Amino acid sequence: MKKYTILLLNGPNLQLLGMREPEIYGRTTLADIVCQVRKLGGELGCEVTDYQSNVEGFLVDRIAQAYSEKVDGIIFNPAAYTHTSVALRDALSAVKIPTVEVHLSNIASRDEFRHNSLTLPVSLGVIAGFGADGYLLALRALVSYLGKQEQRQTVKL
Amino acid sequence: MKKYTILLLNGPNLQLLGMREPEIYGRTTLADIVCQVRKLGGELGCEVTDYQSNVEGFLVDRIAQAYSEKVDGIIFNPAAYTHTSVALRDALSAVKIPTVEVHLSNIASRDEFRHNSLTLPVSLGVIAGFGADGYLLALRALVSYLGKQEQRQTVKL
Amino acid sequence: MKKYTILLLNGPNLQLLGMREPEIYGRTTLADIVCQVRKLGGELGCEVTDYQSNVEGFLVDRIAQAYSEKVDGIIFNPAAYTHTSVALRDALSAVKIPTVEVHLSNIASRDEFRHNSLTLPVSLGVIAGFGADGYLLALRALVSYLGKQEQRQTVKL
Amino acid sequence: MKKYTILLLNGPNLQLLGMREPEIYGRTTLADIVCQVRKLGGELGCEVTDYQSNVEGFLVDRIAQAYSEKVDGIIFNPAAYTHTSVALRDALSAVKIPTVEVHLSNIASRDEFRHNSLTLPVSLGVIAGFGADGYLLALRALVSYLGKQEQRQTVKL
Amino acid sequence: MKKYTILLLNGPNLQLLGMREPEIYGRTTLADIVCQVRKLGGELGCEVTDYQSNVEGFLVDRIAQAYSEKVDGIIFNPAAYTHTSVALRDALSAVKIPTVEVHLSNIASRDEFRHNSLTLPVSLGVIAGFGADGYLLALRALVSYLGKQEQRQTVKL
Amino acid sequence: MKKYTILLLNGPNLQLLGMREPEIYGRTTLADIVCQVRKLGGELGCEVTDYQSNVEGFLVDRIAQAYSEKVDGIIFNPAAYTHTSVALRDALSAVKIPTVEVHLSNIASRDEFRHNSLTLPVSLGVIAGFGADGYLLALRALVSYLGKQEQRQTVKL
Amino acid sequence: MKKYTILLLNGPNLQLLGMREPEIYGRTTLADIVCQVRKLGGELGCEVTDYQSNVEGFLVDRIAQAYSEKVDGIIFNPAAYTHTSVALRDALSAVKIPTVEVHLSNIASRDEFRHNSLTLPVSLGVIAGFGADGYLLALRALVSYLGKQEQRQTVKL
Amino acid sequence: MKKYTILLLNGPNLQLLGMREPEIYGRTTLADIVCQVRKLGGELGCEVTDYQSNVEGFLVDRIAQAYSEKVDGIIFNPAAYTHTSVALRDALSAVKIPTVEVHLSNIASRDEFRHNSLTLPVSLGVIAGFGADGYLLALRALVSYLGKQEQRQTVKL
Amino acid sequence: MKKYTILLLNGPNLQLLGMREPEIYGRTTLADIVCQVRKLGGELGCEVTDYQSNVEGFLVDRIAQAYSEKVDGIIFNPAAYTHTSVALRDALSAVKIPTVEVHLSNIASRDEFRHNSLTLPVSLGVIAGFGADGYLLALRALVSYLGKQEQRQTVKL
Amino acid sequence: MKKYTILLLNGPNLQLLGMREPEIYGRTTLADIVCQVRKLGGELGCEVTDYQSNVEGFLVDRIAQAYSEKVDGIIFNPAAYTHTSVALRDALSAVKIPTVEVHLSNIASRDEFRHNSLTLPVSLGVIAGFGADGYLLALRALVSYLGKQEQRQTVKL
Amino acid sequence: MKKYTILLLNGPNLQLLGMREPEIYGRTTLADIVCQVRKLGGELGCEVTDYQSNVEGFLVDRIAQAYSEKVDGIIFNPAAYTHTSVALRDALSAVKIPTVEVHLSNIASRDEFRHNSLTLPVSLGVIAGFGADGYLLALRALVSYLGKQEQRQTVKL
Amino acid sequence: MKKYTILLLNGPNLQLLGMREPEIYGRTTLADIVCQVRKLGGELGCEVTDYQSNVEGFLVDRIAQAYSEKVDGIIFNPAAYTHTSVALRDALSAVKIPTVEVHLSNIASRDEFRHNSLTLPVSLGVIAGFGADGYLLALRALVSYLGKQEQRQTVKL
Repeated sequence: MKKYTILLLNGPNLQLLGMREPEIYGRTTLADIVCQVRKLGGELGCEVTDYQSNVEGFLVDRIAQAYSEKVDGIIFNPAAYTHTSVALRDALSAVKIPTVEVHLSNIASRDEFRHNSLTLPVSLGVIAGFGADGYLLALRALVSYLGKQEQRQTVKL
Repeated sequence: MKKYTILLLNGPNLQLLGMREPEIYGRTTLADIVCQVRKLGGELGCEVTDYQSNVEGFLVDRIAQAYSEKVDGIIFNPAAYTHTSVALRDALSAVKIPTVEVHLSNIASRDEFRHNSLTLPVSLGVIAGFGADGYLLALRALVSYLGKQEQRQTVKL
Repeated sequence: MKKYTILLLNGPNLQLLGMREPEIYGRTTLADIVCQVRKLGGELGCEVTDYQSNVEGFLVDRIAQAYSEKVDGIIFNPAAYTHTSVALRDALSAVKIPTVEVHLSNIASRDEFRHNSLTLPVSLGVIAGFGADGYLLALRALVSYLGKQEQRQTVKL
Repeated sequence: MKKYTILLLNGPNLQLLGMREPEIYGRTTLADIVCQVRKLGGELGCEVTDYQSNVEGFLVDRIAQAYSEKVDGIIFNPAAYTHTSVALRDALSAVKIPTVEVHLSNIASRDEFRHNSLTLPVSLGVIAGFGADGYLLALRALVSYLGKQEQRQTVKL
Repeated sequence: MKKYTILLLNGPNLQLLGMREPEIYGRTTLADIVCQVRKLGGELGCEVTDYQSNVEGFLVDRIAQAYSEKVDGIIFNPAAYTHTSVALRDALSAVKIPTVEVHLSNIASRDEFRHNSLTLPVSLGVIAGFGADGYLLALRALVSYLGKQEQRQTVKL
Repeated sequence: MKKYTILLLNGPNLQLLGMREPEIYGRTTLADIVCQVRKLGGELGCEVTDYQSNVEGFLVDRIAQAYSEKVDGIIFNPAAYTHTSVALRDALSAVKIPTVEVHLSNIASRDEFRHNSLTLPVSLGVIAGFGADGYLLALRALVSYLGKQEQRQTVKL
Repeated sequence: MKKYTILLLNGPNLQLLGMREPEIYGRTTLADIVCQVRKLGGELGCEVTDYQSNVEGFLVDRIAQAYSEKVDGIIFNPAAYTHTSVALRDALSAVKIPTVEVHLSNIASRDEFRHNSLTLPVSLGVIAGFGADGYLLALRALVSYLGKQEQRQTVKL
Repeated sequence: MKKYTILLLNGPNLQLLGMREPEIYGRTTLADIVCQVRKLGGELGCEVTDYQSNVEGFLVDRIAQAYSEKVDGIIFNPAAYTHTSVALRDALSAVKIPTVEVHLSNIASRDEFRHNSLTLPVSLGVIAGFGADGYLLALRALVSYLGKQEQRQTVKL
Repeated sequence: MKKYTILLLNGPNLQLLGMREPEIYGRTTLADIVCQVRKLGGELGCEVTDYQSNVEGFLVDRIAQAYSEKVDGIIFNPAAYTHTSVALRDALSAVKIPTVEVHLSNIASRDEFRHNSLTLPVSLGVIAGFGADGYLLALRALVSYLGKQEQRQTVKL
Repeated sequence: MKKYTILLLNGPNLQLLGMREPEIYGRTTLADIVCQVRKLGGELGCEVTDYQSNVEGFLVDRIAQAYSEKVDGIIFNPAAYTHTSVALRDALSAVKIPTVEVHLSNIASRDEFRHNSLTLPVSLGVIAGFGADGYLLALRALVSYLGKQEQRQTVKL
Repeated sequence: MKKYTILLLNGPNLQLLGMREPEIYGRTTLADIVCQVRKLGGELGCEVTDYQSNVEGFLVDRIAQAYSEKVDGIIFNPAAYTHTSVALRDALSAVKIPTVEVHLSNIASRDEFRHNSLTLPVSLGVIAGFGADGYLLALRALVSYLGKQEQRQTVKL
Repeated sequence: MKKYTILLLNGPNLQLLGMREPEIYGRTTLADIVCQVRKLGGELGCEVTDYQSNVEGFLVDRIAQAYSEKVDGIIFNPAAYTHTSVALRDALSAVKIPTVEVHLSNIASRDEFRHNSLTLPVSLGVIAGFGADGYLLALRALVSYLGKQEQRQTVKL
């Protein structure tokens, strides 16, 4: 049985999760989330690697590296860079790896400058407002998408 | 074991699903989706009722009725009314039933007037871009949310 | 002595009054308000009929019907449709029945999209921020206006 | 000889035609217009059915029904909904029936919020400013368009 | 029986009332209005003092003085300063005396720069479009509000 | 029998018709269109003269000349100058000759800067999106309008 | 021979003229200007009174006073209040005395917030960019205007 | 005694003066104005040449020619091109001949797109709202300016 | 030893300090602040005079007077006029006395219309968000600036 | 050896080059530039014809003529028309001749209305900020592009 | 006696201080500033550590590290990142360490895109326009703030 | 003979060149480009060093280093940072090394947020739309500019 390789990518300040504004983000740490995603990944036949950085350019580097590693899908919480990074948008657009954007909070109910996402138009879709659950839902969404893609390619053969 | 009552609410033109712009929305019909959500609902311990209307005011009526029926959660695809209906926003805000907003397509990659959602700020969160899968992910998100709410209330006792 | 016929018209979600966000709207129900307006109407020599709907088009229908019924004045709380309905504006503009717009809350201190009223420019004026009292003040304003109009017409004779 | 089926669709407040702001819309009633369009339709080999509603969602319903009825073309005056209805735009876009948008007045010389049309970008074109004549011109435009489409399909055979 | 002290405050150019653009403001003078408000005030158990100035800062001074005088409520027509005075907004916000904003004309149907009110968000509400009647309605609104406040405070005892 | 004199006026790049972006404008040349309009003009009792220029100021000149020549109506496709020429708007506004604006394509579905027309507010109305047919429909609209004007003037006598 | 009474009205900071930013405003003092305007006034048969204040409300007062004094025309440099004073606009609009707006500098070539004038739309016209000469030109413009008005009224007799 | 050469330059549609919208522009023709300006020019020691064109580029040509002819000053009514012509602005900016902009009407009280002037920031100043008088005032303004410039240069010697 | 003369200037509603919205502004009165600034002024070799007014024009007057009195520096809290007064900006710009702008609260975290300062671009700099401390910091900033200016002028000698 | 025909096209005021604002544009005349481009054209195997006009419509004419003459490429400095001409954009878009846009100055560091180019989106690319050198660089860019196009067409054969 | 730990944090290009645009920033180097702040820190009982980076993400890292180190306050000049970094805003907002924002120049008098600060709304306040002095004033502001906080906590005990 | 040192600087995602969206950027790799620029550099007497990074701050570092290395000119493709980096603009503005901005594609025909360049106003100029050729044209532009600068300095000696 084929296994998908999934990159779990997290942007700035998410290393602080569990400490930072808990009324918005909850008390779960990033390590807890990685653990949960890995566990569900195991059930759904996925190998999950993860990366977090506060540096926009290192996230761009990591996306390019994912291309070389033939990663099948990306679960991406760009955090603050969601709203400011054309470079991350270009990186996703260049490597063309299916990506699901995740936000812990419902960004539509926060500051107006957080309503817009530069990275979303080049992603498959978005899951926002469900805290740590969002990552698990994203993994399900990605696996379902990859499964359907595979079927289409098999049919073509 | 307690059962949740879930209202699956669909807005204008979704009765045409499977016929309308399939390159954006896929070929699954609304009946297929209701069927899938009911099936997963059964597995997760939920009773799912559904309603679709092209009339904004009838959707407002249905949300008010959900309040009387003590519905536990709403999965809502407001379709075109997402971008124009203050009345639906007020209805959701009035009844205070936890709601997950679903969009079949990734609205951030379509016409600019579709980027904004009037209903989202009064919902729990959004799942967009995954076609019919979005409804199933929404059900999981809602059940997980309701489960956690219940735990908190039990703890208080 | 001549009696005025007044239509008390209420828009979406106002049937929920008394339950919905009481910190903004108070605990009085719509039935209470109709009762109070009828009572004051009696004192001021007016017959008051009332109508509430969540459907924009039914409110448009009702305004057209008021024209056939030769209603003398309208007290109108368009609620959410205040901010989105060109159709209601056109209806008021077509029938040319003197209309007083009422809002329970002070809309200038709420969300920015609630500051604008599409229906107000074709109404006599607005009374906003006084809860259920607003309807009574509106009735007084309307009766005073109709009285002055009558005087002018008498003078012309 | 083949006959086209044409749906003549009218939006909110147009049932008041002849009474409402005659300096802008003239004194012809909607019944007069339907009669004239039917008459010209007869000459041009068209069967014309008509529908008017003040309810946005019922107009959406009627467009979906036109799809089942295999209507060949729509003449549509969306009136106030021109400027506010994404739902009608989505309906037209879903059924893909050739549609000509008609406005009685020259909307470019009225209130600024009337300059924009949400439905026009998914229509064939627009005829505005010619009062009741606009419907007759629209019928001619539609018949000419359908004739040319037929020729193209015949040529392909 | 307790008596309320009410300040009737009028902004720039209102001393010209009765002469200035009568098609918009009517022929009643400011003295007439003060007289009418005093008379109704007498009936409703209020002592009414009045002040008019063309100088923004003197109106700010008067509001501060009202604080020292323990004025119970303000009826305020800020006229042109409605749209430009942050200082008056700050004054009202500082003294926290319940204030009803009055406009003689329906400002929503005049120049666009008159649609916005800087002072309204810190007032109880607004009455606009009823000419001199607006002041009388404002007095009723204020007395009703003050009466309800008193009841609440009594209940707490 | 009275004959109307009609000026068929075409703006920049329309001399290239039939060559330029045929997927938008079709393959009919400007000469073909003039010919068709003349033919229909003959049937409807009109003498049609035509003029095309790429120079904004020459079109302004031609409109002034039409005033001296007592032209009865203008069919005008201002092309690119639709969106940029205040001078053409002023010319039409000065001579007060009834004008119908024609666009070959549905400008509402093209670049956003093409949605606005400077000349339309001083014209009778617009016909857009029907290719060369638009000119014929414009002629019919104009003749019908001129006929009605004549009737009114006769009645006054 | 009839004499016109002209009010020369100057707004904030103009008392500093000759000292303030001479590269923009020149070295002439306000007293010099008043003197020059009086002298030319004498030649053209006008009595010129002048007033300067830094207080917006006092300028409003002075305009109202001009109404009582039956002033024939106003030459007005509102300086900073040009861009911020709705109160001065309302004052001019109320008294309906013909007013010529003067600016020493060419405001179109300064800060963008100086491009707009709130008072200009209710004035006869503007003269800007000619330093102290502007006042003299304004006097000529006003006298010529008043002369023509007189002729028209004589003709009517 | 030195004589100034002045170019009186008029933009599109001004050749229609006296016929076009007289309620805004009056009944004086362009020939009348040229005559009056020449006459006052004679009194003030100026030779006045004039040019009118509807073609933006020909006006640009004429400004360049004025540079070769060593014209001392320009009186310019750019009419519609005021609001749209960067080319005329560049021409004036290139030849650096002192220019006074004239408008017959008070453009601040007309359509909003007429409030802005592209040519004004590179001119000395503006005179607007005084009909044909504006040209005479402009000539006075220009002669006064040129006189002062001469004095400064003499002083330097 | 040379002494600097410093004007401590306060705008509208600051006389209410200690009473007004203490959660934003603290409980210190204006008299307390003047006292503290005077005390630190004494230590730093400054004579401090103070002025407060609610009238924009009186503040303009006071700045002009400071010019005559040869004041060395101004500490200015324009309060509400920060956001609306072009007249105060022009006054500061005219007298060219070094000015430090002070705000008690962090205006960037309040209403959006409070983010912009009209007076700041013509001041040395701003100190905002430190309550009454801001005035003391401003005095230090001003004295340090004046000391450096003096050194530069001495060096030139 | 094949020769390319290149049209060197220059817009308004460029005939003044060498005289006009030399600090921005340098002292080289248009004739010098034509000469340099011809010389480099000779070396690169191109025949260069040139045209300059101040009239937008004549530039449109010249582009249409270039189509008939089978010109291979255009070097175009639209000058002021860059920012205002939809007609030139339509002309380039119609003839589909590869065009390189040249600007003498770095338009991004000038007035904001000069930042946008209407013609650039239908050109190959832009070279701006290098004075007369820009034309030579444009010729190299065009020749390189045409060479690559030829190779592709040869390969297809 | 208790000592505060203060982090002096500097953003991009500040390592170039003393070389870069000295007319705006002065000739003092960053090392000079650190030295002055340390010295004053010593006097006020503070230990000052400093960090500068051109990398947005490294500044985010350093703020998170400050949280672990229990830093008492931050003096932060975010330089260019002031206007673009949501990530730095989120970092400050997460660690909740009192922060004073410093700018060397008066940003309100520079490019418009420099007027807005993303980091300021989550800081205590701002000091801008006083060159290197700003850091010393910031240290005083911070120490005063921390002292008052301590008092409040002591009082609670 | 003097040799220029040139820094070839490339921003985020350009290391992916040849793989990323080839329909926009072509198939040439960054190594190919460096090679071509070095070769032409050799011919024109330049030593070319190159640097690429995905990290905004490292590009800022590299520009500062170029200042120490006395680099004569920079060829800079800031890629995504063109539109978002104030830090890179400040770095270029600080070191004042002549810089030519290069873009592979014609950014004016892509997403609107790509039309603006923050770095261009502090560069010499821009070359965009010519793929890899753009770098070679930039080198020519830079060498020509440096040559002319040298001549000017020699002349001064």
